Amino acid sequence: MRVLLVGAGGVGAAAAGIAARRDFFDAFVVADHDAARAEKAASGTGDPRFVAARVDASAPEAVAALCREHGITHVLNAVDPRFVMSIFSGAYAAGADYLDMAMSLSSPHPERPYRDCGVKLGDEQFAVADDWAANGRLALVGIGVEPGLSDVFARYAADHLFSRVDEIGVRDGANLVVDGYDFAPTFSIWTTIEECLNPPVVWEADRGWYTTEPFSEPEVFDFPAGIGPVECVNVEHEEVLLIPRWVKARRVTFKYGLGNEFIEVLKTLHKLGLDSTGPVKVGGVSVAPRDVVAACLPDPATLGERMRGKTCAGTLVTGLDRSNQYKSIYLYHVVDNEWSMREYGSQAVVWQTAVNPIVALELLASGTWSGVGVLGPEAFDAVPFLDKLVEYGSPWGIREQ
Amino acid sequence: MRVLLVGAGGVGAAAAGIAARRDFFDAFVVADHDAARAEKAASGTGDPRFVAARVDASAPEAVAALCREHGITHVLNAVDPRFVMSIFSGAYAAGADYLDMAMSLSSPHPERPYRDCGVKLGDEQFAVADDWAANGRLALVGIGVEPGLSDVFARYAADHLFSRVDEIGVRDGANLVVDGYDFAPTFSIWTTIEECLNPPVVWEADRGWYTTEPFSEPEVFDFPAGIGPVECVNVEHEEVLLIPRWVKARRVTFKYGLGNEFIEVLKTLHKLGLDSTGPVKVGGVSVAPRDVVAACLPDPATLGERMRGKTCAGTLVTGLDRSNQYKSIYLYHVVDNEWSMREYGSQAVVWQTAVNPIVALELLASGTWSGVGVLGPEAFDAVPFLDKLVEYGSPWGIREQ
Repeated sequence: MRVLLVGAGGVGAAAAGIAARRDFFDAFVVADHDAARAEKAASGTGDPRFVAARVDASAPEAVAALCREHGITHVLNAVDPRFVMSIFSGAYAAGADYLDMAMSLSSPHPERPYRDCGVKLGDEQFAVADDWAANGRLALVGIGVEPGLSDVFARYAADHLFSRVDEIGVRDGANLVVDGYDFAPTFSIWTTIEECLNPPVVWEADRGWYTTEPFSEPEVFDFPAGIGPVECVNVEHEEVLLIPRWVKARRVTFKYGLGNEFIEVLKTLHKLGLDSTGPVKVGGVSVAPRDVVAACLPDPATLGERMRGKTCAGTLVTGLDRSNQYKSIYLYHVVDNEWSMREYGSQAVVWQTAVNPIVALELLASGTWSGVGVLGPEAFDAVPFLDKLVEYGSPWGIREQ
Repeated sequence: MRVLLVGAGGVGAAAAGIAARRDFFDAFVVADHDAARAEKAASGTGDPRFVAARVDASAPEAVAALCREHGITHVLNAVDPRFVMSIFSGAYAAGADYLDMAMSLSSPHPERPYRDCGVKLGDEQFAVADDWAANGRLALVGIGVEPGLSDVFARYAADHLFSRVDEIGVRDGANLVVDGYDFAPTFSIWTTIEECLNPPVVWEADRGWYTTEPFSEPEVFDFPAGIGPVECVNVEHEEVLLIPRWVKARRVTFKYGLGNEFIEVLKTLHKLGLDSTGPVKVGGVSVAPRDVVAACLPDPATLGERMRGKTCAGTLVTGLDRSNQYKSIYLYHVVDNEWSMREYGSQAVVWQTAVNPIVALELLASGTWSGVGVLGPEAFDAVPFLDKLVEYGSPWGIREQ
């Protein structure tokens, strides 16, 4: 296996560090628009299989050329979701398989944005799934932690814990604090705004996919490992689009434990138009307000040393168990920032995202996982993935509610 | 009298429209960095005394050259307070008198920003007051509505209503709504952020000027004319720096009726660093986040047609009246947006600001008001000013609390 990693930001650099401890690949090219950042992530592994390259992720032909130059078999996309389609197309053009951690972007329904779906997350990728399958190529989409591990949990629960699944609700929460900042998101603010301000999507068996107002159906979810109760709200997320394609359930939701303060910040950004990705003229220049917001905040990848606490990703499944008893079970994965900083030098949120595509690459390299077309994580057997996660030193947990 | 108006934004254009109905001047040059905007404001009056010019308000020599070219006797500054010192200096260099509606900017105390004053509003102007006086020149500073009319009210109360003044508290509130926008400030957001996020300043006779945390001493003030109760908080404002220089009082404050929603928006902008005026790098360009915030919001001067409601500026004076009875009296001025749009085509907040310097210019032209040095509105007799306001069709009111 010869891997091209596109993106040497927080998640990309963490992925390189995790992969460097494994022997399932022969070459690992770390590419970024910032050559110095790529070089730092590659050389930081101290592993001669890693080399750095510069790439324009917005140009499919540049991605394809880099694949051909290095004989790439698998492209791992670790940049923000604006670049999904260019990297996805570039990998296909070069005959490589493809993995990402976020899918092609949605756009709201032009007339009824808070009721009906417009273009859904991943629609552009699924539109060409037949081409990928016909060419024997695999795009494994949404294989970070959420989407990714959360989808694996859904598949595991359906296969091994339940006889009938009523609701699959992904629940994500943390008690991370960043010392020395009034406000410092622990994950890309660009992506967080995209997720939280787009109309949240819900799936129901008798209705299909539909949308709601942002921040709908608030609930307080009690997270494990000492994190405790956090206010969670519906947000747009890939799991809701992926899980119903492969796992039988009556309802699928995603709720993000944003907490009240973060919700208020996002509402204010939206109210002022500062979430916009369209350029505004300011003096003699044009900028996208959302990029200015991101530029004002510290880079989450650099905050690990100042962070304290844990982050939890998990999937709450309710339905009838194998004995036809009504059950509600939360399958989850917790990363303590102190542990991830000590073991890998990566902060908890980016490490938790980055470990999953490396596990998946290892399962694909061994042939334990295989397939063609555009497939989500729940299209594969969950057990070897969850076992591998334990082998990587990061076990998962299960809690009956 | 030959007037140079610098700034053809909302307040400048409204000032031109108000002045055009009066005969106290011979020439009125409307200058702006945007020549088309200046031309629109000048020709919009349909009055041949008005001509347009282009000027760089940040260059004192450009302001002085324009004064000399047109034989200007009085410069009226109607741009944002970043340009106070350049216009003030330019007028002085050309031998013209000067009026403004906001004073030179403050900077917080480097060590104790929320206890002690650093550089105060107007300090840079008062520092050269002796030069202005020695040259027989007048700078009438802070002669909008607040500061301006609010200072005139303070002087009137001290001269005619009270024998001992305990507290002079300016209180500003409105019930304006803008149809069709989630959030649309009715006054310059740049200036509002500056006023509200700088440490509020308070004056006490036995302590002098000192500062507090932003948004301190919240109170609900019941505004007249049907506006009703609005949450008010301390903000930095010129009245607190001006009134104690000429009017004897034990305490002077300024509270702005921001309302809860606006306060939360300002706190969020501050938390995210989006209030900053220092440039940040975004992609290949540099921008000040505060300028981006302003660019995302509609221009308040253009909102008049969509606005409904009234704005109130006033001064609450407490102390012993002429019969040594304890009294609390609110002197106020209300503008109904429907009236100002119909009568002048200007929205209420900018019209209410703009009328006052025109009244002052008229009093200076007739010699009713005269003086040299750097003087606030409360340095002059209040009665002819308040009478003139009635003559302009915009009466003021008085309410015993």
